[in-house]
Amino acid sequence: MSNLEAKFADLGAENAPGQEVRQNADDLKSVVRGDVIPGRTVDFSHGDVDAFAPTPGARAAWEAGYDLGCAQAYTEYRGAAEIRADVARSLAGFTGAPVDPVDELIITPGTQGALFLALGAVVDQGTKVAIIEPDYFANRKLVRFFGGEILPIPLRYHDTPDQNGPNLDALEAACKAGAEVFVFSTPNNPTGQVFGETAITRIADLAAQYDLTLIVDQLYSRLLYSGEGYTHLRACATRPDKLVTIMGPSKTESLSGFRLGVAFGSAALIDRMEKLQAIVSLRAAGYSQAALKTWFHEPEGWMDARIAQHEAIRDDLLAVFRAAGFRTATSQAGSYVFPELPELAVSPEVFVRLLRLQAGVTVTPGSEFSPHTTSSIRLNFSQDQTAAVAAAHRIVEMVKRYCA
Amino acid sequence: MSNLEAKFADLGAENAPGQEVRQNADDLKSVVRGDVIPGRTVDFSHGDVDAFAPTPGARAAWEAGYDLGCAQAYTEYRGAAEIRADVARSLAGFTGAPVDPVDELIITPGTQGALFLALGAVVDQGTKVAIIEPDYFANRKLVRFFGGEILPIPLRYHDTPDQNGPNLDALEAACKAGAEVFVFSTPNNPTGQVFGETAITRIADLAAQYDLTLIVDQLYSRLLYSGEGYTHLRACATRPDKLVTIMGPSKTESLSGFRLGVAFGSAALIDRMEKLQAIVSLRAAGYSQAALKTWFHEPEGWMDARIAQHEAIRDDLLAVFRAAGFRTATSQAGSYVFPELPELAVSPEVFVRLLRLQAGVTVTPGSEFSPHTTSSIRLNFSQDQTAAVAAAHRIVEMVKRYCA
Repeated sequence: MSNLEAKFADLGAENAPGQEVRQNADDLKSVVRGDVIPGRTVDFSHGDVDAFAPTPGARAAWEAGYDLGCAQAYTEYRGAAEIRADVARSLAGFTGAPVDPVDELIITPGTQGALFLALGAVVDQGTKVAIIEPDYFANRKLVRFFGGEILPIPLRYHDTPDQNGPNLDALEAACKAGAEVFVFSTPNNPTGQVFGETAITRIADLAAQYDLTLIVDQLYSRLLYSGEGYTHLRACATRPDKLVTIMGPSKTESLSGFRLGVAFGSAALIDRMEKLQAIVSLRAAGYSQAALKTWFHEPEGWMDARIAQHEAIRDDLLAVFRAAGFRTATSQAGSYVFPELPELAVSPEVFVRLLRLQAGVTVTPGSEFSPHTTSSIRLNFSQDQTAAVAAAHRIVEMVKRYCA
Repeated sequence: MSNLEAKFADLGAENAPGQEVRQNADDLKSVVRGDVIPGRTVDFSHGDVDAFAPTPGARAAWEAGYDLGCAQAYTEYRGAAEIRADVARSLAGFTGAPVDPVDELIITPGTQGALFLALGAVVDQGTKVAIIEPDYFANRKLVRFFGGEILPIPLRYHDTPDQNGPNLDALEAACKAGAEVFVFSTPNNPTGQVFGETAITRIADLAAQYDLTLIVDQLYSRLLYSGEGYTHLRACATRPDKLVTIMGPSKTESLSGFRLGVAFGSAALIDRMEKLQAIVSLRAAGYSQAALKTWFHEPEGWMDARIAQHEAIRDDLLAVFRAAGFRTATSQAGSYVFPELPELAVSPEVFVRLLRLQAGVTVTPGSEFSPHTTSSIRLNFSQDQTAAVAAAHRIVEMVKRYCA
């Protein structure tokens, strides 16, 4: 196998969310047990923007952008200056540390675009990168694509809040072993764990001590459940020199169809990201950028209501899965749950396909998030509540049917 | 300088179209001659979508996509199936060879996105890539970014149509020297030259003989001037096995603010491109994709009128530059002219900045397109005709002012 063939074999996207439609179901016939379980189809691989509609005003903002014409179609590669100024102000307020709109922020095609550019800016052949396990699947794929080497950092997430968290001794060992970059999401995707203040502070300290570049994906940090706190790494006492924070309005705000993300942090890194964006896709779609004018300017009470609705769905799903005996961590933020299934008579990949075929339920296999979580499945529960709960019951029924 | 530093130094985007706004003009004071020349500001670095508005119906198509909701927000990574089916049909008709919408086409964030994915799919450390000089600046940058090696192929463009063209003996020599990929634009950016049937046929033959992968950027192939013909490489008698053709509605159709491109060709290459898109930006903005429903379905006569308007501007600019004695090739298609300026008392980069400062005219320096075209400038003449002609006269006046 040539180097390029190996590189693309590593990028297998067959099980990636949204790609299931390309699968062929013929080979499942020999293992199928029982009939189809009726019920409304639910695609837990991503949020349902029909159940949770885009921020009020987003469509009108796009239309105003279109009407602006050339100035909105051809922005700087890092995004329209006026929009960056507004977003930088909001993000400074939200995270508790200043953001220079001229040099420290870039608008990207989704947070996926931001992650790609951030890792592309710092990972090269042989760069050692510390990666949480489990964490967002693209992190590992990106590091491999750029030729980097992964140093895994285990995440504990099935215990009490003060036992849970990333293994920071493993992170320090990785630093000693030459790690130059640490990329992670908090709230963690897929477990919904928010890294606590102690962990975040120690990460900042380790970065200072070992000259580590930090890339923090805070995509879900606005969707924080009752009683939970959030520590922004960029507002730490020892603010890391080389830090990029990533956010975007695709999730809580349901603006995914606009493909918008932002990265903010060290000017030198943002500058590299813009240079890379110039050859990757030039800029986030010009007219789409205008929808960012609604971000952090949602109507009074809108965000609180959205959080409460998600919390209710989370509680329902936790109750269903725990009653069935599936170990499931309590998501502190975001819209993912990551139940662990008992041993099954079919492989996890086949089970996930059977779920889709027989129960009308699409989930993302745990193998996408780390090599050690193959028995878990990830659900994005930003869905119609009734449909989501019914689908969770079908998952439980399917697990019973295929138990080893 | 570390490998990454070198890589990003190569990606310098300071002179890239649209980025001039980030430049500081203080250092020009010592070389300035004369006053500001009044006149309406013209940015020739890209087309003016206010002068040439987006295709009728594009805005309504976006709105219908937005109303579709989740299905349009979360398409397959390669784009919405129904839209691909329609676009594949149109492109098969336009290029004269079939396109399978399921496996042979991907929708990307602009044609820049398509180029990035296509080169990312085939260029790795040490891959030898034949590149036309001059050609679109991102081609060279992309090859370097992926670690490839550039084998330059000179383009003759100042002579008669049968003398002009790429040096195909140089291409054959490159093949013998191990070139695995050949990427080029036709119509050529920046000269507007359309590669003739003889050249295209020989390229197809060389590809077959040397197992060369071909990436053809046909972005401007719809904007073809009177009396010109166009040969589609993918419709050649020896249709290349490994071929990706790139097009998009950003130019002639002025849909740049939607960020849409398409790549179509060999299923194995399109598959790799989708895998790469999955980690780069997931997909072209979902709602934007809906605007492709207007593509190749423009109102009767609309495209003919648009071509005629551009041809009139081309003729005016050629007349102005030739009267001033600047060697300027006749663009056969597209909206670029690439006049060669006489020797100046300031460097070409400084002259381009002075043009912006004193004449209100933005152009792209020839050094972006090859190391041998530093005395030329590129103009995208998709502009208001009167403003463009007045700006061309100011360029001539500025050249006189700064003559060596």
